[in-house]
Amino acid sequence: MDLDPADQQLALELDRAHVFHSWSAQASLKPMVIAGGLGSTVWDFEGTEYLDFSSQLVNTNIGHQHPAVVAAIKEQADVLTTVAPAAANLTRGKAAQRILEKAGSRYSKVFFTNGGADANENAIRMARLYTGRDKVLSTYRSYHGNTGAAVVATGDWRRVPNEYSRGHAHFFGPFAYRSDFWSTSPEEESARALQHLERVIVSEGAASIAAILLETVPGTAGVLVPPPGYLEGVRALADRHGIVLIFDEVMAGFGRTGSWFAFQALTAEDGSFVEPDLITFAKGVNSGYVPAGGVIISPAIAEIFDEAVFPGGLTYSGHPLAMAAIVGAIDAMESEGIIENAAHIGRDILGPGLAALAAKYDVIGEVRGLGVFWALDLVSDADARTPLSAAGIAALKGKLLSLGLLPFTADNRLHVVPPCVVTDAEAERALAIYDQAFAELPDLA
Amino acid sequence: MDLDPADQQLALELDRAHVFHSWSAQASLKPMVIAGGLGSTVWDFEGTEYLDFSSQLVNTNIGHQHPAVVAAIKEQADVLTTVAPAAANLTRGKAAQRILEKAGSRYSKVFFTNGGADANENAIRMARLYTGRDKVLSTYRSYHGNTGAAVVATGDWRRVPNEYSRGHAHFFGPFAYRSDFWSTSPEEESARALQHLERVIVSEGAASIAAILLETVPGTAGVLVPPPGYLEGVRALADRHGIVLIFDEVMAGFGRTGSWFAFQALTAEDGSFVEPDLITFAKGVNSGYVPAGGVIISPAIAEIFDEAVFPGGLTYSGHPLAMAAIVGAIDAMESEGIIENAAHIGRDILGPGLAALAAKYDVIGEVRGLGVFWALDLVSDADARTPLSAAGIAALKGKLLSLGLLPFTADNRLHVVPPCVVTDAEAERALAIYDQAFAELPDLA
Repeated sequence: MDLDPADQQLALELDRAHVFHSWSAQASLKPMVIAGGLGSTVWDFEGTEYLDFSSQLVNTNIGHQHPAVVAAIKEQADVLTTVAPAAANLTRGKAAQRILEKAGSRYSKVFFTNGGADANENAIRMARLYTGRDKVLSTYRSYHGNTGAAVVATGDWRRVPNEYSRGHAHFFGPFAYRSDFWSTSPEEESARALQHLERVIVSEGAASIAAILLETVPGTAGVLVPPPGYLEGVRALADRHGIVLIFDEVMAGFGRTGSWFAFQALTAEDGSFVEPDLITFAKGVNSGYVPAGGVIISPAIAEIFDEAVFPGGLTYSGHPLAMAAIVGAIDAMESEGIIENAAHIGRDILGPGLAALAAKYDVIGEVRGLGVFWALDLVSDADARTPLSAAGIAALKGKLLSLGLLPFTADNRLHVVPPCVVTDAEAERALAIYDQAFAELPDLA
Repeated sequence: MDLDPADQQLALELDRAHVFHSWSAQASLKPMVIAGGLGSTVWDFEGTEYLDFSSQLVNTNIGHQHPAVVAAIKEQADVLTTVAPAAANLTRGKAAQRILEKAGSRYSKVFFTNGGADANENAIRMARLYTGRDKVLSTYRSYHGNTGAAVVATGDWRRVPNEYSRGHAHFFGPFAYRSDFWSTSPEEESARALQHLERVIVSEGAASIAAILLETVPGTAGVLVPPPGYLEGVRALADRHGIVLIFDEVMAGFGRTGSWFAFQALTAEDGSFVEPDLITFAKGVNSGYVPAGGVIISPAIAEIFDEAVFPGGLTYSGHPLAMAAIVGAIDAMESEGIIENAAHIGRDILGPGLAALAAKYDVIGEVRGLGVFWALDLVSDADARTPLSAAGIAALKGKLLSLGLLPFTADNRLHVVPPCVVTDAEAERALAIYDQAFAELPDLA
């Protein structure tokens, strides 16, 4: 592609003049211009390149501009871009078939949405109608989307100005490094977190609870890989009380953890894993090349809507162009071993490499993650685990950008979330850049 | 495109096996297969063609597979399909610029979403934060989307199983043919509807009301073109009480009424028209070729978020592929006179033609509309205005399909909503098909 450097200024000017940005105060924004990308690299109109270790918003699992997905989109664009959801569309059927193949035999149908927020909205709707109950339990360390129910299910600060939906209660999930349960080990954290959840269920009234909604691995909240036994315990509590278990795999699904779904990656010693009743997805399903999300549904829940009208829907449910991108992405991820690559990068490069950085720099309080889904919990005092200041994070972010790496930061953390297609050499290069950035930042208070 | 008739059965089988449908009981669905389309025509894999007088879900304003929009999508697909909303993207800036040009000088910024539902969610969010008030008023005859706040703002039956959001109250809008105000003329209907709205505002507590949210022309509720003076009166009430006025132009916008926006089509005798504070859009902005929606924002509201963080956002806000489709669609609609064509079709063909059908068939109780946005209110008793039965509508729908026309029906109505690119000959052909269908249906009770 020919880049015109004059477009750099034009892109900035049009943006500042006309575009209203997500989750921001608008006046102080200095957006980075991104003109194009390929694989794990993006560039601006002046030709400056960045190693994309953000995957944008942790969505370009297959990397930028994967030729097979671009080709699938262009091919569908020539046939039929859009069709009403009531029609039967072949590409939609193929997309649903592939998603169900990867999710496993516990699931029978897919309801397609535009993204993760409305996927969670519709999963919550299904759970409420299936159980005849109102309440949804979710954790404080979570993000589930920006619409009515999804943003109130969300636990982080983004919920607070938006609490207009009823029927939500929040609990604390396991997080051994910053325990809300005064635990001293992951095992104890898991047991106490389950005890806490059971206390919340009983106290809220088990018979009022429609669903427990969990990010399988809470993502923006800090890549909080659940400790052994936790998900098993949640599944048992849900079963005991007739509660629908929803795993939000919007960020964790489709390769991020080195498995198709995160719940499949979190195996017990005997290889078994916990399956939810509903799975929500978006992002990695087609790497966001065309907006899409959805709910993967188990037969017991799907079947109540055989005769009863499901009271939810949207114009772009099962949008052909989005579906073509899903088929293209899943097929390419499978045939090119992209899931296996994500697992390998986590196991052999990022896992050991980030652990080595943590051993070298006191500012790295903990390294957590798997696959291409990692967080460095940064601290100004290692013993007290004091979160690094916003100024410290801003300095680190600036340094990384100046070294040619596009980072993902959240609160006091650096998230290491490259595309699943990242190569060994790119991962090594990123580790070297992180190393240099930490070395050259004199005072991260 | 080469069609393989074997794909007809495959599309149906995959759909019935794996796809969960919007707003439906799943078991009895017999979806129509749509394999492709062009302009105002769609076809299945067996080559059977239908004149699409539904525009799918009233979204393909530019018709199916418009070559300029398809080309814009493919061109962007080769450059950059997706990027984080925090980045500046040239195509996004161009899309916002074009939308604002069409909306007029009262507006300064665009916040992009995935569709109409989250456009309304975010408009409601802006209005609440701008006013510091909670309540949203909307009409019973309305549809605003399927997520938390949008579905409770909705007035029709789809709200009722989904009332989990607080801060909503509903009122009756003007509808002279089925008046809720015992009126005997459109002028009286307008005056009484305004009196009713003022009573609701005062009774709910004007100081508690953040927004009045109205479809400029309520669409799925029956193409309820507001009577003269109504929108002016609503604007005055909003101004008097410091309430944000939101026009939902998801269905009515971008050409449907023969103007860029419906509010611009509804002019007073002096040519003036009513402008809202926020406009929500989706569908026609790019004809749904790539999922997109958004909020058009006036400066007073945009500016409060210069320094305060706007607490809303989404991964695919300003998605480059969707933005390319917006730029392509708006440019083509402008250069090809597509808006003017929609106005002409309404004024010269559909308006007189549907009126002639109404004169011929007692079952047509009223014809309402403008541009390519019409409804036939069907009745089993013309004097009592008894709505035609569901069986009658089903029979009509089946007849129209058998005559090669894909209709849009809602409740007791036939909506006549072809693409804005529909030709005179196609509109005449549709009128002849409607004529034949009404003539051959012996007993529409």
